Amino acid sequence: MTDSLLDVVCVGNAIVDVLVQTEDAVIAEHGMVKGTMALIDAEQAEALYAAMPQGIETSGGSAGNTAAGLASLGARCAFIGKVRDDQLGNVFAQDIRAVGAEFTTPAATDGPPTARCLILITPDAERTMNTFLGASVNLGPEDIDEELIARAQVTYLEGYLWDREAAKAAFHRAAGFAHAHDRMVSLSLSDPFCVDRHRESFRELVRDHVDILFANEDEITSLYEVDDFDAAVQHVRLDCRVTALTRSEKGAVVVSGDEVHIVDAAPFSAIVDTTGAGDQFAAGFLRGFTLGDDLAACPRIGAITAAEVIDHVGPRPQVNLAELVAARLAD
Amino acid sequence: MTDSLLDVVCVGNAIVDVLVQTEDAVIAEHGMVKGTMALIDAEQAEALYAAMPQGIETSGGSAGNTAAGLASLGARCAFIGKVRDDQLGNVFAQDIRAVGAEFTTPAATDGPPTARCLILITPDAERTMNTFLGASVNLGPEDIDEELIARAQVTYLEGYLWDREAAKAAFHRAAGFAHAHDRMVSLSLSDPFCVDRHRESFRELVRDHVDILFANEDEITSLYEVDDFDAAVQHVRLDCRVTALTRSEKGAVVVSGDEVHIVDAAPFSAIVDTTGAGDQFAAGFLRGFTLGDDLAACPRIGAITAAEVIDHVGPRPQVNLAELVAARLAD
Repeated sequence: MTDSLLDVVCVGNAIVDVLVQTEDAVIAEHGMVKGTMALIDAEQAEALYAAMPQGIETSGGSAGNTAAGLASLGARCAFIGKVRDDQLGNVFAQDIRAVGAEFTTPAATDGPPTARCLILITPDAERTMNTFLGASVNLGPEDIDEELIARAQVTYLEGYLWDREAAKAAFHRAAGFAHAHDRMVSLSLSDPFCVDRHRESFRELVRDHVDILFANEDEITSLYEVDDFDAAVQHVRLDCRVTALTRSEKGAVVVSGDEVHIVDAAPFSAIVDTTGAGDQFAAGFLRGFTLGDDLAACPRIGAITAAEVIDHVGPRPQVNLAELVAARLAD
Repeated sequence: MTDSLLDVVCVGNAIVDVLVQTEDAVIAEHGMVKGTMALIDAEQAEALYAAMPQGIETSGGSAGNTAAGLASLGARCAFIGKVRDDQLGNVFAQDIRAVGAEFTTPAATDGPPTARCLILITPDAERTMNTFLGASVNLGPEDIDEELIARAQVTYLEGYLWDREAAKAAFHRAAGFAHAHDRMVSLSLSDPFCVDRHRESFRELVRDHVDILFANEDEITSLYEVDDFDAAVQHVRLDCRVTALTRSEKGAVVVSGDEVHIVDAAPFSAIVDTTGAGDQFAAGFLRGFTLGDDLAACPRIGAITAAEVIDHVGPRPQVNLAELVAARLAD
């Protein structure tokens, strides 16, 4: 089993989310920037948790969510990320294995506890994230298993890894192994502030090392420091082999050299919580891509899986995505 | 003056609009299909006018609206279309000359009266049109002035002309003169039902005779008989030199061979009446195009001019568009 082929191996921060529904005033009061992710330290985390009502705990992390989506779509996938041997770490490991993703990264036996992200969901369904990276930042190059990377068609990396040196080294090692084995490297830009923190190295990555790039409108315009989406499209199509750009209710755009596809958002019943929408779009897209679907079809699957996740609280699918996609595509 | 260069000559049905604000129930009651244009005869026109409250009369016609928009943008332009020597005909001629467009097509001295279009505007700002073509259908090849066509960079034709044989012959003659003088031919597909009536000849036109095509999403998917926008984009980029596709609140897409631009809708204060939005988009686009702007910039001007016209009742601009565009682009 362990030496069989994989579709995607996802590498990212192993995080347990704590979801709290709240008001805009609370966001402002704590000096947060709505719709973005801020990194907080252990002390800030403690103070913030104390100030909030009881939330819902659920496994998260951008690449972890994508792995869960891929597994629900029937893809063979694995996750690489670091938890601590504590209660939240066990929750994370159980959850990701329960959906069918391989997860063999050893848990840390000392150091900070498992990472957690306090996600404040405002009435407009936007999410504002405060992440205490905890054990996840101790993901290091030694956790990247060459054999695992070599087995997967695509190694998918979240941009958030770039925030810490050890994880960045792990990122480089994973990308290096993938290309050494003629596999593809995919990157999600994760967050406009994350792009802002690492613009130059992200540009270099996109130009020289990434085969499939995922970004939303804010992230791609930040990457190229341009005012509008179209200008960013013109840049990225010269830089990257395949780019999938998400635009919320405006749908998605896929560019690959001279090929461009413009795809509508899928219908949904309500926008309850946009957490994980980008992660699940990536899952749907990569499912199609690794099955050999053409570039017009991949974002349609991504649109369906993204629409499922915004319909409920929580960043991972609540239905069998393979069945959902089959039904929607048959409509 | 008359032998100076022109930017655009617009050829279309010379129509006076009668605008009536009404309810959805009235549309259904009269068996109309909301959002489309239906052709009616003299008798139906009389019955329908009798059943409606007093409306606002204003010069219209798709290509006429575009000519008015172009003139307001400071372009040198002319209009070719047929009125009767009656009161509405005088209104039309005065209006189009007042905005600064040349208009020299002789008025008919007999036959049906000047064309009129009863436009029902529902509370959602959609317009449903009932057109009595009257004198406008007697536009014939003899009304197409070779010298006038030769003076213009672009000859812009509305698809509605295709509905009557004489006008169709005029259309062919205008396109023929334009190309004979190394000028460009532009076509607006006008309406999904118009496309449906003439699909095969429109496809041939687009493939063989049109340099700049304008269509909305319904029209372009109807032209290629495909379900979704992206599929239509893939067809038309192989067929036509430059295509500008409008998508209402989703903005516009311009395709030209390997070049693709995706542009947002411009901000507006309220959607009061969408009549003329496509016509004014074409005006803005062609203004940029004839000034030599690149294909990313042209749809931005079109988005601004379209946003102006949906803000009020009536299909022609109510402000100086040249000033409006300069101000918006400077923002």
